[in-house]
Amino acid sequence: MRVLLVTGGSRSGKSRYALSLGEEVGARRVFVATCPQVDEEMAARIERHRRERVGRGWETVEEPVDLEGAMERTGGDVVLVDCLSLWVSNLLYADEDIDEGEIARRTEGVLAVCARKEGTAVFVSNEVGMGIVPDNALARQYRDLLGRCNQVVARAADEVALMVSGIPVIIKK
Amino acid sequence: MRVLLVTGGSRSGKSRYALSLGEEVGARRVFVATCPQVDEEMAARIERHRRERVGRGWETVEEPVDLEGAMERTGGDVVLVDCLSLWVSNLLYADEDIDEGEIARRTEGVLAVCARKEGTAVFVSNEVGMGIVPDNALARQYRDLLGRCNQVVARAADEVALMVSGIPVIIKK
Amino acid sequence: MRVLLVTGGSRSGKSRYALSLGEEVGARRVFVATCPQVDEEMAARIERHRRERVGRGWETVEEPVDLEGAMERTGGDVVLVDCLSLWVSNLLYADEDIDEGEIARRTEGVLAVCARKEGTAVFVSNEVGMGIVPDNALARQYRDLLGRCNQVVARAADEVALMVSGIPVIIKK
Repeated sequence: MRVLLVTGGSRSGKSRYALSLGEEVGARRVFVATCPQVDEEMAARIERHRRERVGRGWETVEEPVDLEGAMERTGGDVVLVDCLSLWVSNLLYADEDIDEGEIARRTEGVLAVCARKEGTAVFVSNEVGMGIVPDNALARQYRDLLGRCNQVVARAADEVALMVSGIPVIIKK
Repeated sequence: MRVLLVTGGSRSGKSRYALSLGEEVGARRVFVATCPQVDEEMAARIERHRRERVGRGWETVEEPVDLEGAMERTGGDVVLVDCLSLWVSNLLYADEDIDEGEIARRTEGVLAVCARKEGTAVFVSNEVGMGIVPDNALARQYRDLLGRCNQVVARAADEVALMVSGIPVIIKK
Repeated sequence: MRVLLVTGGSRSGKSRYALSLGEEVGARRVFVATCPQVDEEMAARIERHRRERVGRGWETVEEPVDLEGAMERTGGDVVLVDCLSLWVSNLLYADEDIDEGEIARRTEGVLAVCARKEGTAVFVSNEVGMGIVPDNALARQYRDLLGRCNQVVARAADEVALMVSGIPVIIKK
């Protein structure tokens, strides 16, 4: 698969841009949602977003943890993963002792599936390392883990966009 | 009006760059300050900055909330708004229930005035979404509101600069 | 000296990229570590990193505070300072009343040494100003001080790279 990474801060227009990228690629569209349904409000919001995407031709697959398996099971012209930042958060929630090496291995596992398949993969992630060092140790660990995950994906990616105020800044092509 | 947006992190040189952009445009210069005078120290600092700008030909207008009205009332070769981030903070302070839709409408109201007038508008804003998700719910709400405001302005803007370590990185032109 | 600045968020690949830049320059390589050895765990980590660099031809000098003196005393084809963010943190720790003017003077002192010497200086720093305004006053002060230091170095630098997800984005050349 061709691999695209869309990263950026919160509310920078990442998901919207990633969807538009995916819709340029082809008609068979899979959206892999990594967001866990932690409460009813969240579930309702997820369901609303899912329905919006149905009208635009996206099938939604929910997979908060086993992203490699989800990439293996799904296929189409484009598979959009939204987002790596929640995936890493879910992995950390499941195992507080997870380290950067393990995150790198898991991420490479996902990319290895992409390398064996046809089509385009669009990964959405977040930049979380440009603020003050967090007081909270778990937040610092998360920052390190996600930073590593993003580096692994960006190195393998054919194209990387950094979203700033809704504008895609192409930083690798 | 031609619309320019200067965004970036704290102490990245945004205001200095925005002033230099404005001074290239023409001699009739209006500076719209959105900073509320919350205490004496703040008032003294605002007054010092105001005097510095007087020497460089800027008239200062203070308007923490009604930015659309301020844009309507003022005019010149250039109107510089410093900054959208405090404006959004003031709107949130005045109404904690304000949502992204309302912020988008208010921002579009400001831009609609710009569309009807001559000259150049320079908006200064902040990137606040590239750190760890804040613990504080109000901070998360603010981050979402400002992100939305920035997207609306950037989409309408003729030019957008992201300041990094004092360097303007032109991300839209 | 030619001056290069590598800045970016945490875990964005700054140190790795700075080392690779330095190794392109020449064989006589000095690494100025500004990290204070605050505890045994830190000391062990520093020692491990130092040994890794030895194999790649780097001599390590530790100097948490007197960076101007360290630049004066050392020399070679390349001097890599990792990092300005810890240096500013150490200066603030030593004197909580330090202000932006003093940080600018200290930074200019370091650059003045560079201007008198041959070779290449590579400075690593951090972007810490793109998150929400910190609650903590000392964190806000640190953010301002480091932002100022970065601006002073970036203005003097021949080349500035912003690291994003391991990708060097050249923002000044």
